[in-house]
Amino acid sequence: MSKNVFFVQKGPFLLSDLFVNIDLNKKIKIFDIKPLDEASEVDITFLESTNYINLAKQTKAGYCLTTDKLKTHLPNTCKSIIVKSVLFELCKITRKFYPDADIDTPDPSLKKPVKSKFSKVKFGNNVFVGKNCKIGKNSIIGSNTIIEQNTIIGKNCIIGSQVVLKNSIIGNDVVIQDGCKIGLKGFGFIPVKNKNLRFPHIGKVFLNDNAEIGSNSTIDRGSVGNTIIGKNTFLDNQVHVAHNVKIGENCMIAGQVGFAGSSTIGDNVSIGGQAGISGHLTIGNNVKIGGGSGVVKNIPEGTVVMGYPAVPLREFLNSSKK
Amino acid sequence: MSKNVFFVQKGPFLLSDLFVNIDLNKKIKIFDIKPLDEASEVDITFLESTNYINLAKQTKAGYCLTTDKLKTHLPNTCKSIIVKSVLFELCKITRKFYPDADIDTPDPSLKKPVKSKFSKVKFGNNVFVGKNCKIGKNSIIGSNTIIEQNTIIGKNCIIGSQVVLKNSIIGNDVVIQDGCKIGLKGFGFIPVKNKNLRFPHIGKVFLNDNAEIGSNSTIDRGSVGNTIIGKNTFLDNQVHVAHNVKIGENCMIAGQVGFAGSSTIGDNVSIGGQAGISGHLTIGNNVKIGGGSGVVKNIPEGTVVMGYPAVPLREFLNSSKK
Amino acid sequence: MSKNVFFVQKGPFLLSDLFVNIDLNKKIKIFDIKPLDEASEVDITFLESTNYINLAKQTKAGYCLTTDKLKTHLPNTCKSIIVKSVLFELCKITRKFYPDADIDTPDPSLKKPVKSKFSKVKFGNNVFVGKNCKIGKNSIIGSNTIIEQNTIIGKNCIIGSQVVLKNSIIGNDVVIQDGCKIGLKGFGFIPVKNKNLRFPHIGKVFLNDNAEIGSNSTIDRGSVGNTIIGKNTFLDNQVHVAHNVKIGENCMIAGQVGFAGSSTIGDNVSIGGQAGISGHLTIGNNVKIGGGSGVVKNIPEGTVVMGYPAVPLREFLNSSKK
Repeated sequence: MSKNVFFVQKGPFLLSDLFVNIDLNKKIKIFDIKPLDEASEVDITFLESTNYINLAKQTKAGYCLTTDKLKTHLPNTCKSIIVKSVLFELCKITRKFYPDADIDTPDPSLKKPVKSKFSKVKFGNNVFVGKNCKIGKNSIIGSNTIIEQNTIIGKNCIIGSQVVLKNSIIGNDVVIQDGCKIGLKGFGFIPVKNKNLRFPHIGKVFLNDNAEIGSNSTIDRGSVGNTIIGKNTFLDNQVHVAHNVKIGENCMIAGQVGFAGSSTIGDNVSIGGQAGISGHLTIGNNVKIGGGSGVVKNIPEGTVVMGYPAVPLREFLNSSKK
Repeated sequence: MSKNVFFVQKGPFLLSDLFVNIDLNKKIKIFDIKPLDEASEVDITFLESTNYINLAKQTKAGYCLTTDKLKTHLPNTCKSIIVKSVLFELCKITRKFYPDADIDTPDPSLKKPVKSKFSKVKFGNNVFVGKNCKIGKNSIIGSNTIIEQNTIIGKNCIIGSQVVLKNSIIGNDVVIQDGCKIGLKGFGFIPVKNKNLRFPHIGKVFLNDNAEIGSNSTIDRGSVGNTIIGKNTFLDNQVHVAHNVKIGENCMIAGQVGFAGSSTIGDNVSIGGQAGISGHLTIGNNVKIGGGSGVVKNIPEGTVVMGYPAVPLREFLNSSKK
Repeated sequence: MSKNVFFVQKGPFLLSDLFVNIDLNKKIKIFDIKPLDEASEVDITFLESTNYINLAKQTKAGYCLTTDKLKTHLPNTCKSIIVKSVLFELCKITRKFYPDADIDTPDPSLKKPVKSKFSKVKFGNNVFVGKNCKIGKNSIIGSNTIIEQNTIIGKNCIIGSQVVLKNSIIGNDVVIQDGCKIGLKGFGFIPVKNKNLRFPHIGKVFLNDNAEIGSNSTIDRGSVGNTIIGKNTFLDNQVHVAHNVKIGENCMIAGQVGFAGSSTIGDNVSIGGQAGISGHLTIGNNVKIGGGSGVVKNIPEGTVVMGYPAVPLREFLNSSKK
């Protein structure tokens, strides 16, 4: 059971302490909060939408926050904890396990990198690196860039200038252009009048081998799961990737595209400039999305779509002609 | 009568010196230029659009730049100065009062902060702070961030890394993520062939208590009035807020949303990703605007709209089905 | 024949070494790769689209990479080299001439500027400047800004804080606001599974006199040609200009507008916020493009367009009313 190195983690907690108003076995200990597909029998997970029924059926979690309607999709090995608002309760207990993950406090351990520790890395001027970072050989880090604690960067990477990297695991041969902000907490909170309740973001960003991120792009880390950019996927400038988005391999994402949270994009997908992808969608492999499109529904493999809302290309061209 | 601390202010000027071609009382002194709702009897204000008739009726300004058509909306206490182009004349006289506010010259007073002056503030590496800044206790400022002269920051704020803050008044418990540029001059000028005439930006940015601004967002200061983000309003990454925009309390603004200048947004408004709000609009309380929408008209309280141009949701869904 | 100062240039190469599988004169030397309108008789150029037939007819290039279909548009003085994929072959030979231009390695020559060399320039804190840069008198450079090698900046310019400038030629009286990234390589590559083949970007960015660039904007340099912003053209915040785009004089480009690669925009063009301009288009002089529009076709001089896809304004208003 691997600890989350990026955030201070409390616990284990007694299940009955996490949910004081629910009648639960007093002796059960819960060790962590994880997504449906990562949780083990000592963890708690959550199911708040029918989008995730397939994952729910196979979960190995011991406990699951869910609703009366959705509980039927869980296996017998997973006990359901029925609540009114899954996300509100999830937010509250995640804050107990991870009290420091709801706001990004600038890393107090940042220092100029010690040459002996990073003997095969080239640093520009005025770079600051936090504790426990690892950077592979032949990687180059541009001036004024900040790499916060525990970040891992592979070999032969080129990280530009004025970049901020935190809570991220970066593969080999990755290129990050100037001005990117990667691994920050996402836009997740429970609206509360006068003082919103921020959702802890305990996930990471994974940029896999050969990925490239265009300048001034932002990639938020996951809330409970992770945000992932697949191998050899290239993002152009000013792209925004929200928390928990998973983009496959060999994709081409043009400038100013925006992804809302928790969508999954297949392999070999190309997306034209300024397109927007709504949250919690599944976009199949080999999909092509035209520039400026607004995607609000799942798109099956191999489809070409365009428009706002996005529809198959032929349909879009017909309706434009009218 | 409070002086504008952010900009060198000249004057008072004789009214007859400001408008040499207009026959005006030679002895009247004008002390400042202010919006309709802030001007006093020794100030000059302006009225260039029917959007602002309600404010005009109640103005306490002594003088008002306006057109022959609009002058009837001013109270008797306010003398109208009739011109062909209100904005052109306003630009010219604002440049007389504020000769340095049309371009943002980097603050020459920036220095590493003196610990004794900011004993309860935590600074990252390489932070620069201008003269006369105030920062409340327990606030944290990330590395490489620049806070220009006279900026005021409240208590318990978290300002990320690589931020630029100028001409801003920031409340308590405000969060600004990495890479934001706040308080810069807006996109306002009189087009002139070969050399545009820049409009001075003498306003400020107010970020009220508990506001949060996502990474790489930009919020321009007001031209004559101010730009305001209300209490507990959260902006996601890469949002652009133009000059004079006023956003209410408890709003949720998703990623890559753009606001053109001078619009007023109510409380509890939620706006989906990549939506655009045109200039000089009024959006009521409790409005919901779908992602990707283009809002070109005022929206009454409580309405849900979507589309380009944005229309009530039911209408949008019907027309998409066709 | 001027050398490209920004990139290490190899050659000349024997034509028969560049194209080993094509039967070509063994003694011909090729000195450089240039666009149709800049190439001389010792250079090779390329023609991959009917968009560029007019330039092709007048090219002075000695050789041209093209297809069997397009070769008829070349003058007799220009010998065609017929290939299956013009861009793939162009990419391969450009990489031979310019082996270091496909990725932006942070400039290793960056140093704090020596006062004696820039006696009439005002620098903020922590500015880094590369070798061979020239900066005109009375220019001001904001804190934490990076100016990479060989960049030229004219007189009376104001460059904000946290800017990155590289591979750029900047005129007089230019304003660049905080956070801009200008002159980086563009989003150009041949998709190859597992490891895309990056297109070298050997062009520059030209910002002509009196231009203004809003904060956090990104302007990529040209691939083979240049990216150009005309005199007195103003860009608002968060605008993205892709490689090879040429924008004329006296234009107004509002916030979050995006330009895909290689489009040419005339003079006196105004573009509303969040509009997108597709690649390889020609937009005439005095065109007005409404906010949020998606332009996918050439637009003749003097036209007002709006919509997605953009159509003449009257047409847009009619179809919105339905």
